[in-house]
Amino acid sequence: MNEETIKALLESVQQGSCSPAEALLQLKDLPYEDLGFARLDHHRGLRTGQSEVIFCQGKQPEHIISILNHLGAKAKNVLATRLDPESAEKILPHFPSAHYDAQARCLLLRPLEDPTISGKILIMTAGTADLPVAQEAWLTARYMGHEVDTLFDVGVAGIHRLLGQRELMEKAEVLIVVAGMEGALASVVGGLVEQPVIAVPTSVGYGAHFQGLAALLSMLNSCASGIGVVNIDNGFGAASLASAIVRRISR
Amino acid sequence: MNEETIKALLESVQQGSCSPAEALLQLKDLPYEDLGFARLDHHRGLRTGQSEVIFCQGKQPEHIISILNHLGAKAKNVLATRLDPESAEKILPHFPSAHYDAQARCLLLRPLEDPTISGKILIMTAGTADLPVAQEAWLTARYMGHEVDTLFDVGVAGIHRLLGQRELMEKAEVLIVVAGMEGALASVVGGLVEQPVIAVPTSVGYGAHFQGLAALLSMLNSCASGIGVVNIDNGFGAASLASAIVRRISR
Amino acid sequence: MNEETIKALLESVQQGSCSPAEALLQLKDLPYEDLGFARLDHHRGLRTGQSEVIFCQGKQPEHIISILNHLGAKAKNVLATRLDPESAEKILPHFPSAHYDAQARCLLLRPLEDPTISGKILIMTAGTADLPVAQEAWLTARYMGHEVDTLFDVGVAGIHRLLGQRELMEKAEVLIVVAGMEGALASVVGGLVEQPVIAVPTSVGYGAHFQGLAALLSMLNSCASGIGVVNIDNGFGAASLASAIVRRISR
Amino acid sequence: MNEETIKALLESVQQGSCSPAEALLQLKDLPYEDLGFARLDHHRGLRTGQSEVIFCQGKQPEHIISILNHLGAKAKNVLATRLDPESAEKILPHFPSAHYDAQARCLLLRPLEDPTISGKILIMTAGTADLPVAQEAWLTARYMGHEVDTLFDVGVAGIHRLLGQRELMEKAEVLIVVAGMEGALASVVGGLVEQPVIAVPTSVGYGAHFQGLAALLSMLNSCASGIGVVNIDNGFGAASLASAIVRRISR
Amino acid sequence: MNEETIKALLESVQQGSCSPAEALLQLKDLPYEDLGFARLDHHRGLRTGQSEVIFCQGKQPEHIISILNHLGAKAKNVLATRLDPESAEKILPHFPSAHYDAQARCLLLRPLEDPTISGKILIMTAGTADLPVAQEAWLTARYMGHEVDTLFDVGVAGIHRLLGQRELMEKAEVLIVVAGMEGALASVVGGLVEQPVIAVPTSVGYGAHFQGLAALLSMLNSCASGIGVVNIDNGFGAASLASAIVRRISR
Amino acid sequence: MNEETIKALLESVQQGSCSPAEALLQLKDLPYEDLGFARLDHHRGLRTGQSEVIFCQGKQPEHIISILNHLGAKAKNVLATRLDPESAEKILPHFPSAHYDAQARCLLLRPLEDPTISGKILIMTAGTADLPVAQEAWLTARYMGHEVDTLFDVGVAGIHRLLGQRELMEKAEVLIVVAGMEGALASVVGGLVEQPVIAVPTSVGYGAHFQGLAALLSMLNSCASGIGVVNIDNGFGAASLASAIVRRISR
Amino acid sequence: MNEETIKALLESVQQGSCSPAEALLQLKDLPYEDLGFARLDHHRGLRTGQSEVIFCQGKQPEHIISILNHLGAKAKNVLATRLDPESAEKILPHFPSAHYDAQARCLLLRPLEDPTISGKILIMTAGTADLPVAQEAWLTARYMGHEVDTLFDVGVAGIHRLLGQRELMEKAEVLIVVAGMEGALASVVGGLVEQPVIAVPTSVGYGAHFQGLAALLSMLNSCASGIGVVNIDNGFGAASLASAIVRRISR
Amino acid sequence: MNEETIKALLESVQQGSCSPAEALLQLKDLPYEDLGFARLDHHRGLRTGQSEVIFCQGKQPEHIISILNHLGAKAKNVLATRLDPESAEKILPHFPSAHYDAQARCLLLRPLEDPTISGKILIMTAGTADLPVAQEAWLTARYMGHEVDTLFDVGVAGIHRLLGQRELMEKAEVLIVVAGMEGALASVVGGLVEQPVIAVPTSVGYGAHFQGLAALLSMLNSCASGIGVVNIDNGFGAASLASAIVRRISR
Repeated sequence: MNEETIKALLESVQQGSCSPAEALLQLKDLPYEDLGFARLDHHRGLRTGQSEVIFCQGKQPEHIISILNHLGAKAKNVLATRLDPESAEKILPHFPSAHYDAQARCLLLRPLEDPTISGKILIMTAGTADLPVAQEAWLTARYMGHEVDTLFDVGVAGIHRLLGQRELMEKAEVLIVVAGMEGALASVVGGLVEQPVIAVPTSVGYGAHFQGLAALLSMLNSCASGIGVVNIDNGFGAASLASAIVRRISR
Repeated sequence: MNEETIKALLESVQQGSCSPAEALLQLKDLPYEDLGFARLDHHRGLRTGQSEVIFCQGKQPEHIISILNHLGAKAKNVLATRLDPESAEKILPHFPSAHYDAQARCLLLRPLEDPTISGKILIMTAGTADLPVAQEAWLTARYMGHEVDTLFDVGVAGIHRLLGQRELMEKAEVLIVVAGMEGALASVVGGLVEQPVIAVPTSVGYGAHFQGLAALLSMLNSCASGIGVVNIDNGFGAASLASAIVRRISR
Repeated sequence: MNEETIKALLESVQQGSCSPAEALLQLKDLPYEDLGFARLDHHRGLRTGQSEVIFCQGKQPEHIISILNHLGAKAKNVLATRLDPESAEKILPHFPSAHYDAQARCLLLRPLEDPTISGKILIMTAGTADLPVAQEAWLTARYMGHEVDTLFDVGVAGIHRLLGQRELMEKAEVLIVVAGMEGALASVVGGLVEQPVIAVPTSVGYGAHFQGLAALLSMLNSCASGIGVVNIDNGFGAASLASAIVRRISR
Repeated sequence: MNEETIKALLESVQQGSCSPAEALLQLKDLPYEDLGFARLDHHRGLRTGQSEVIFCQGKQPEHIISILNHLGAKAKNVLATRLDPESAEKILPHFPSAHYDAQARCLLLRPLEDPTISGKILIMTAGTADLPVAQEAWLTARYMGHEVDTLFDVGVAGIHRLLGQRELMEKAEVLIVVAGMEGALASVVGGLVEQPVIAVPTSVGYGAHFQGLAALLSMLNSCASGIGVVNIDNGFGAASLASAIVRRISR
Repeated sequence: MNEETIKALLESVQQGSCSPAEALLQLKDLPYEDLGFARLDHHRGLRTGQSEVIFCQGKQPEHIISILNHLGAKAKNVLATRLDPESAEKILPHFPSAHYDAQARCLLLRPLEDPTISGKILIMTAGTADLPVAQEAWLTARYMGHEVDTLFDVGVAGIHRLLGQRELMEKAEVLIVVAGMEGALASVVGGLVEQPVIAVPTSVGYGAHFQGLAALLSMLNSCASGIGVVNIDNGFGAASLASAIVRRISR
Repeated sequence: MNEETIKALLESVQQGSCSPAEALLQLKDLPYEDLGFARLDHHRGLRTGQSEVIFCQGKQPEHIISILNHLGAKAKNVLATRLDPESAEKILPHFPSAHYDAQARCLLLRPLEDPTISGKILIMTAGTADLPVAQEAWLTARYMGHEVDTLFDVGVAGIHRLLGQRELMEKAEVLIVVAGMEGALASVVGGLVEQPVIAVPTSVGYGAHFQGLAALLSMLNSCASGIGVVNIDNGFGAASLASAIVRRISR
Repeated sequence: MNEETIKALLESVQQGSCSPAEALLQLKDLPYEDLGFARLDHHRGLRTGQSEVIFCQGKQPEHIISILNHLGAKAKNVLATRLDPESAEKILPHFPSAHYDAQARCLLLRPLEDPTISGKILIMTAGTADLPVAQEAWLTARYMGHEVDTLFDVGVAGIHRLLGQRELMEKAEVLIVVAGMEGALASVVGGLVEQPVIAVPTSVGYGAHFQGLAALLSMLNSCASGIGVVNIDNGFGAASLASAIVRRISR
Repeated sequence: MNEETIKALLESVQQGSCSPAEALLQLKDLPYEDLGFARLDHHRGLRTGQSEVIFCQGKQPEHIISILNHLGAKAKNVLATRLDPESAEKILPHFPSAHYDAQARCLLLRPLEDPTISGKILIMTAGTADLPVAQEAWLTARYMGHEVDTLFDVGVAGIHRLLGQRELMEKAEVLIVVAGMEGALASVVGGLVEQPVIAVPTSVGYGAHFQGLAALLSMLNSCASGIGVVNIDNGFGAASLASAIVRRISR
């Protein structure tokens, strides 16, 4: 429903092929589907370049099933995130081709296809406890059509583990740094590379970590510039931003 | 001091043109300049693609003068951020070609040159009180060689002001959204465009705004994906990230 | 026990039909019922225009049963909120006509009657995960005698879903906006309508959402004026305020 | 620019009195005025029933003067809030008919007119230190055309001061309760009246008050239902909400 | 081990009935009992006027059994607080005369005796959900030998419930006010009475209550003076302070 | 306006010496004085045993002068707290007999009289930087008619300074412990004495002290029982509570 | 991979016994082992003097088993911390010589050996509920080869329990103070001894303790100097720091 | 007043050379000096190995002068910290040999002497804005008799600046890491060295730094073990802890 379509509509009104009343209806008829409890945004792919992804937290399993059915009918594939194992168990029987990744807590309606967009995304973690978040980012990026490299457990307490991997870092268009604890990895990586860095604080830690607050504040205050931060444990958001950047690069 | 230079160094050791002791020295002699109170990182341009920028907050005016002199001797231009007017007054007389922008609280050692990198950055603000932060972002982006468009005072309380500017938004490679109060502009923009969005919360607000915390949390929790957040009032950081993205696109 | 009744009482003292001691007793005998562990406020309906509603959180099931019995004996209907399913299971057998709504976690002692107060309340949600809070608001408003419209899943990430519903919004006397995440829907709605808007932040979100704090701060700092905020997840409170407003309008 | 005007526009296109290109222009030409640093929303009065009010905090005096000039040219009167005395001193010479209220930190471009909307708003304060916020609310409500009663210094530490004023409270359509410290006045008032109550926490307090946080949390958690809360010290917001309610009542 | 005993000890050294080495030992031998994992302070009764009370949270059941045995051997009675039902079940079989109060989560080793100290303590609650904390206070005060009156469910949303109970309030030496939500009851009571008031915030509430923070801040910022606050849900602490006051009064 | 006066009023109505209308007026005519901006509570002395004290923070000097005049006309003496030096300078010329204590930031309308109530209050501080708060407590207690002892700079980092003062501590009826930093003095004192202890956290500290939060939390979580806490820097509140206790003891 | 080894490598290049390409490989080949999901840092013992310890929180049991196998193959012993009982149950069958300490939630791959490093570490606790954290510290210190003394339940509410233990305190090289509640023990100990003190706040407490925040802030603000603080409940970190100090002393 | 002196005292009582009354007096007469407003702890040097240092924040200049006089009369030198320039100006004229360091905000009563304790302390900073805190640490350490090396501006955004300084780091017995922003330097240093590391978060930063909170949390959550943290900006505390460690090493 962009400028061109509006202009075309107006021209058809001028030419009499469309009455004002019909045009008004079309101007108001936006491309979403109303399920009563949810409004599916089929138009989003055109508008933001991304397919609708289902954020499952707080949704009833029967609602998720219904949304998967409606979106699955129009889209090549559908990704559902933040899906807990109990709900997944109720949902999976309805979708034989679906796969549930328990670590990432994500469901894919159909198998992943090969990457279609050139330009690598590198996903790094400070520790092995950050893997679930990294896995959510990996699945999201691959679902969105990207090539993804990974570099796990390269936290700054053993900085040579990181410094020995400069080559891999240089090959990426965008780097996603996933780190809990004090989240210092984002700063060190940000000081080493020229590419955009996306920092994902994780809730890995305890005590004065306050469920990710320590890592979040650390990343927002990084002494290295050129770092964009997403919400705590938001692997999906990091991959979405990385995807937006790489799609721009690969145009 | 990359892989190639190390290999060359080792070959000159092999060929006897360089002794092991000399090579050791070179391997340790990294390209920074030690001023006693500060270590200038001339190497940063090679490493991260960005020139050194002086973050002035907490630095003595005489230190800033010294750093400006040393950096200015090797770089085409130098940007100093977070420079308060009192310090600027003491520094300006030493640098006749310098310009101080009081709103952005930034100093440029020499005049801005025309943009050299293709690909537009669009800087948006929700209100007019967000202008100082937007101006810091504008100066930084221009200093880094980019073309910048602006779109000010398009907050969501009058959403038609924003919706009427779709064309300008579509022309940008990256959008920087600067907003205080509840920072909702980032979410609305993030839902409208396919490009990467960088959100800058500002400290504009009062009471339960807690000096920018409300806008920061709002942006981190945006229901629109593909948004990277920087620190409160960090116009410089937003522009640095935008620059890293656009330089990647325009390669 | 208002001014008129006091005056009448004093006149009966003057006329000798009531002794000072008896009058003193009546002046002290306020219309509440003491159950030992609770004091039921039958007088509230007269004073604030609202029936007593039982807030069940932290109350023992046997206490709730006792309160339901006492209130039910004098009132047309009783609403119990924040009632968890385990307690509901113990309570329901005692009240055959009662209905428990598991999503809203509310119990109604008797079936809802048709609305008796003119003037619509519109309840909107940003996402489907906000439905339980919206449902608590819906039940409360209907219990208080109001007509209620709903508009679900119209979050700002797809703003056209909202803009296409201007007509429904214009028909309401008051709008209740239920939103988690960054809660931006309240600001956008507040900028579109002239009616009072009541904003309910929900705890839907994760990480830096801090169980609803992000949405709460966002709504308190809305750039749109004319918005009243209630506690996180407080659908009941929002409906109570909406009811107070509509009853005032429909007098 | 509502449904009717769009329909009329389309009909003029159908009848040939307006070309599609012109219509497109009009559909995009929204009624705001672009000053470069600000976009004035002349349309707001139609949309939300409220005139544009200038929030001055963070704005340059010269910008405020310019906005006052533009808004003043089209509106009967203009209100500027959060205007500090230093800025007011620079602005007042340009507007001979303007009045600055130092306590409320508000400027009115022209004298207040008599109330035009029936239905009283009652503004109450817990203490005398809450007066500046109450005064901002008073000016805003009067500017918006309302009758306002006041009841100051009726905090709960001397509850009889409040209980003796039931009559005044009963005469109001809406009550605004302004309170710092522990903000308990909102709960007590909310338990006494049937009208909507708007609670304004103030930053009056010290130590563990945390600049209004204590009063804010207190009001959000009030045991009395039917209370809408606005931001700390936000007298303007409270009056805006009260105005929206009373305008609805007095239609 | 007070001044008199030291003086006596020194005199016995002077008189030769005690050697310096023995005296040194006694001066160092303080009246506590070392269980390895705990040091029981039998001396506390002399020093602070209170018997040792076992705070069970975080202690192993076997440790609690051991402490109960050792303290029980020397004291008339022992109180154990913060004892969860699971641990109580393991402990009770070892102490046939013990009684466990599940609501207060307290265990008494032996039955309560009649009050021995004159001067009433009045325990008030705002709501019925505050009863567990009030019950912990009641048990503690009675265990310490005091007379206790109670007044439950007199929250400020129905202030007449409170105002009708002035007589009961006047009979107490100290008043303990237990309240969750916004905790306004403490302020209202503090403004009505001349006796010391001890305020206990409870964690009763949700959302922006933050597990009792709202009530705590409210009570610390009370506009009524003469109020001492204890930790959230700390019925034991409130009763201890009340006991210290009443024992002082009744000397 | 207590039970007896109401009864007497009712009897005069019965006897015809007072008409119902007059009685109603009296029942509504509560003993406060309305200054427009403030309502003076002359009745408070009867109700809570304390004279009205003026909390000056946030009040205009002219308002304070007016309140001092009205209260001074009916009371023996008046205390004004939280009065900054600038305001004091404007107020003092109007009251020749008044004295301003700059450290405590308090003004006394007339000279202090000798203590009239038996029973000592001991005010202790951890450090010398806590003296202003201790001085506010001292002035308040003396103003309320009490004998006060002091013990300054006995913080726990040199615990023998405290242990050598047991005798002074034993002579007091109530102890007020004023401490910043980590506030540990309250716990140590609470473990040494049997009297009630009132803890005043001060804002003395820096960094992670967060303006008194560290000391406040420390005192609320004291491992010693029988401690009542007041707001940060609230010397007045501590003395008020101490006064309520001592007056009860000395009855 | 220190300076000497680099020099030796360069000399072998000079002498032709190593080609530049081989040398480059060695310079890049850092001594860690890549398990895919984790990078084991065998080099850490050389670099920081400490063996790798497995932080198990957030790691899958199968990952922990794999890491234990790889580390166990090269190290004398391995310590795993923050291992919950459920995971321990799955892991233990694979390692017959391993021992799991449920209180400390630690697993040791092989039995502890006798201390090899002279210089005692004293671990103190304020209460018995602090024992799990103290036990984690004890195991870590013993695993690292140290002699450890303990002094439990010496909180400041009974300060004589502490003062009677000066001798034990004087024998230690470093003191670890583990305390929850208000954490005052750290300050008192810090004021009594000349050795370094390491303070460990614990999450023992409730209400305004905020899961250890109160004790943490208290310790950071200690009025005694010479105290280093570690994260809440971080017994491992405290022992690591103590070990680094004692190893330095015993060199 | 240690065990030996008590024993000697008791023996003199036994031998009749000292009466019990005199002995009692001595047992109570602890070695501090009472100035009325302050109690000087001359005994501290014996007890904790450190001379009394004056923490000036919140103290009156006249009090500081008095304390300096009393301490100066008995000690070789005195250090006063947190002394603002205004107070220093008033104090300096009274002490001709004193020196005030404006950057560190410290005053030394007499010139620094040469180090007397072997074992180096290395003070590192991440940026030049951290210098004031580092300077406070430097002065304190030197005042306490230590040798100090410095390494400034080696933040992790240019990690080679740090890695090139391994030699200097290896020469220190203890390392003090002073860092603001995200404080990542502490983690990187902690992962590189085997010595104890003391981390000092500074308030250098803005926005979501919250005056040092970000750096503090980061350091408390460091993924490198063996790090002790002190309060924000507490250079004095870091040096005190370093001194305690080095004195222990150099015994």
